[in-house]
Amino acid sequence: MSKKDNILIIGAGLCGSLLALRLAQRGYTVNVYESRPDLRATDISAGRSINLALSDRGLKAMRLAGVENKVKPLCIPMYGRLVHDTEGNTFPSNYSGRDNEYINSISRGDLNGLLLTEADLYDNLTIHFNKKCTGVDIENNIASFYDYKTKEEFTAKGDVIFGTDGAGSSLRKSYYLERKFLFSYSQNYLTHGYKELEIPASAEGKHLISQDYLHIWPRGDYMLIALPNLDGSFTVTLFLSYDEGEYNFNNLTTEEAIKNFFNSKFPDALALIPNIAQEFANNPTGALGTVKCSPWHYKNKNVILGDAAHAIVPFYGQGMNASFEDVTVFDAILEQHEGDWETIFKVYEKTRKADTDAIADLAIDNYYEMRDHVANPIFKEKRAIEMALEKEFPNKYFSKYSMVTFKEDIPYHTAMTKGRAQDKAILNLLVDKKITTTDDLNSILKKVQLETEAILEEDKIAGLK
Amino acid sequence: MSKKDNILIIGAGLCGSLLALRLAQRGYTVNVYESRPDLRATDISAGRSINLALSDRGLKAMRLAGVENKVKPLCIPMYGRLVHDTEGNTFPSNYSGRDNEYINSISRGDLNGLLLTEADLYDNLTIHFNKKCTGVDIENNIASFYDYKTKEEFTAKGDVIFGTDGAGSSLRKSYYLERKFLFSYSQNYLTHGYKELEIPASAEGKHLISQDYLHIWPRGDYMLIALPNLDGSFTVTLFLSYDEGEYNFNNLTTEEAIKNFFNSKFPDALALIPNIAQEFANNPTGALGTVKCSPWHYKNKNVILGDAAHAIVPFYGQGMNASFEDVTVFDAILEQHEGDWETIFKVYEKTRKADTDAIADLAIDNYYEMRDHVANPIFKEKRAIEMALEKEFPNKYFSKYSMVTFKEDIPYHTAMTKGRAQDKAILNLLVDKKITTTDDLNSILKKVQLETEAILEEDKIAGLK
Repeated sequence: MSKKDNILIIGAGLCGSLLALRLAQRGYTVNVYESRPDLRATDISAGRSINLALSDRGLKAMRLAGVENKVKPLCIPMYGRLVHDTEGNTFPSNYSGRDNEYINSISRGDLNGLLLTEADLYDNLTIHFNKKCTGVDIENNIASFYDYKTKEEFTAKGDVIFGTDGAGSSLRKSYYLERKFLFSYSQNYLTHGYKELEIPASAEGKHLISQDYLHIWPRGDYMLIALPNLDGSFTVTLFLSYDEGEYNFNNLTTEEAIKNFFNSKFPDALALIPNIAQEFANNPTGALGTVKCSPWHYKNKNVILGDAAHAIVPFYGQGMNASFEDVTVFDAILEQHEGDWETIFKVYEKTRKADTDAIADLAIDNYYEMRDHVANPIFKEKRAIEMALEKEFPNKYFSKYSMVTFKEDIPYHTAMTKGRAQDKAILNLLVDKKITTTDDLNSILKKVQLETEAILEEDKIAGLK
Repeated sequence: MSKKDNILIIGAGLCGSLLALRLAQRGYTVNVYESRPDLRATDISAGRSINLALSDRGLKAMRLAGVENKVKPLCIPMYGRLVHDTEGNTFPSNYSGRDNEYINSISRGDLNGLLLTEADLYDNLTIHFNKKCTGVDIENNIASFYDYKTKEEFTAKGDVIFGTDGAGSSLRKSYYLERKFLFSYSQNYLTHGYKELEIPASAEGKHLISQDYLHIWPRGDYMLIALPNLDGSFTVTLFLSYDEGEYNFNNLTTEEAIKNFFNSKFPDALALIPNIAQEFANNPTGALGTVKCSPWHYKNKNVILGDAAHAIVPFYGQGMNASFEDVTVFDAILEQHEGDWETIFKVYEKTRKADTDAIADLAIDNYYEMRDHVANPIFKEKRAIEMALEKEFPNKYFSKYSMVTFKEDIPYHTAMTKGRAQDKAILNLLVDKKITTTDDLNSILKKVQLETEAILEEDKIAGLK
């Protein structure tokens, strides 16, 4: 293949800008259309600083694009959860028994800006801002746009179109609405929504609580979390039911009600969030949805990646990492089959779909774990045993969380299947008193391994996944 | 409540006509709008005779509406599957070890016609045919229609609107498109489609193969089934991949290819289907989809029931039964909370959703079981043991199939959870040689019960459903 195809990418968010960068590095002519203004020139965050957890799968993709060293300075390592009880006491719970394993708090805007700046280095890559995609003619690969600046509509054509336009993807909507093929599609919402608040930095620009942890206030039916920012502030997120329970978004409508709620449930957090009433009233309440669909492509013409193909809830801290990993996986398949887009798209979905389905399901599991199990005695015992196993056998034992978060070469689906069996094994061994937290670790490891294998084998015989 | 509300029902199919009948019996003024012509006056089957399996959940609903005795004469009992191999040999596999348990082949058209005729007996019930619903204003409860006869558009208002308009429900579409609330929705297609064919009656109007069975030709990647009709014919359905494998709908495009396929895979069936090439070419290829959604209602105004709320694939023979059971469940809740529609709708979904989700999942499980497991030695051994247990302990042992099909008072979700654990128990006991088909049945029953309980307990500890 002498001449490289013209690539049109819809969306220059985290996934789109990384994909654009990688395709430009491969020599394609790339045009990216993004609905928002250039976030490096305009503050589009409405005053809020959104941060995310970057972990090993995401970092692997950064390495692929050659930007890992530029990303690292933006990262704040978080070594575990710091659980806050209603009395204001705190309890650390590490993410791993291995010292070198942690996740990173990073600003979405800073990381996206870095990828855009890197993309600007390529003459064969152009990013068009303020261009909102309004639909795609998937047969003829013509995308329609509205230009927010000129107020004009226009179309653009690509040899291949990539939709990396997020959970509300216009390319995915065209798949759904054009009915050219049987399109399996699901959107599932949790009963809870979320709202972002802020713990500002101290007058000296320091963090007011430890920056080494993801802070969590688990309260069963709802919870609060906080991730550190480089400027000393924390972005706080409240996860709460829309309309159920004593406290919910529908009935917390007055300053008094909001303050009473925080005062009785999160008193230590309340003391750190000076503008709580104003932020609670002004910041939007976001929905928590999971999107799955199939197929991800149409013929050899166009394909969706990232949140456009698989939006997930944020409770495993894997949304961004999964989207970045899409690019890693796609890039390897492109390398194998370059020139044959239909094969590339098919092999990509066949390789990848089980894994993005798995992380979507794991993220929902973690919603319950974080709200509830974190404070549950038997789950605490399990966690203590796993930390000890990881510390004692750093190359032999990996918890489900470690496989998902730190073992970037284990596919999500494998991590889920093995991790769930392992969790079930430990919990049942504990309840049956076949292991206790004071046992010899060699003996515990052996029992957990045997029981995990037995569970996997029994599920296999029964034809279960 | 002195005055009863005006009820508007969209769709006079199986679920809609039963619901209309039941609400009329309760004294409501009911208007039903149906897009098709009156099937009692017009042949709308395009020459094909569609039949379904009516079982105990459906019959319970018929009893509720007082029509069970009129339905019974339309039924042809099927006592089990008759498996056909590629040599033309047949092997019976009963549905139950109890003699009085069977399913019934029934004509969809005949049953629907019976319900419509019954509905006509009520002065407070009116059915309007040829009126296609084009959308619903869910806030103001105004439904828009197109009249196929007069070619005119019109609207109709109800105090309460019920959407029983099937898998492509227009009321559900309004929930999706109006975005007045977070609407969780999924449509998932199998990789296979289906096509209906016919085994005609003999010259004397008799069945050419036994009418006492559901005939099945399982071939792993595809399968053929046949259900008897009252006129001596059988409706045959081929389930086949659209585009995968050696044989698929995309490549079976010539008479020669079709006949070669049947001749090598279903020779005994081919001999009974004289018009195979013509039917294969002319009959449409249907898609196999599952629809789930939530919520099922909007405020106290409107609600969806039946396939509109939960379309499922046909492999458990429970689609119609589940829709009829919706009416049974709804009716009991209406009895409890009459006058408070919002509570009725909420309690109905809370009561019913886990069960319709369960039967949707079970139907997909059975797709694999029928294609594959039916001919698998270990699954055959399991089936033999279950038949023996049901025969020996008719009041103590119920297979998953029996719980789903014959135990109308066990909710689908309970049947699924217990049935899956029981299946897993038997399969693992067989593989581990802890039971064999020649063991004493008392001993087998005890082991299966203990193992089932252990599996349920272990799943519970691990927080699995």
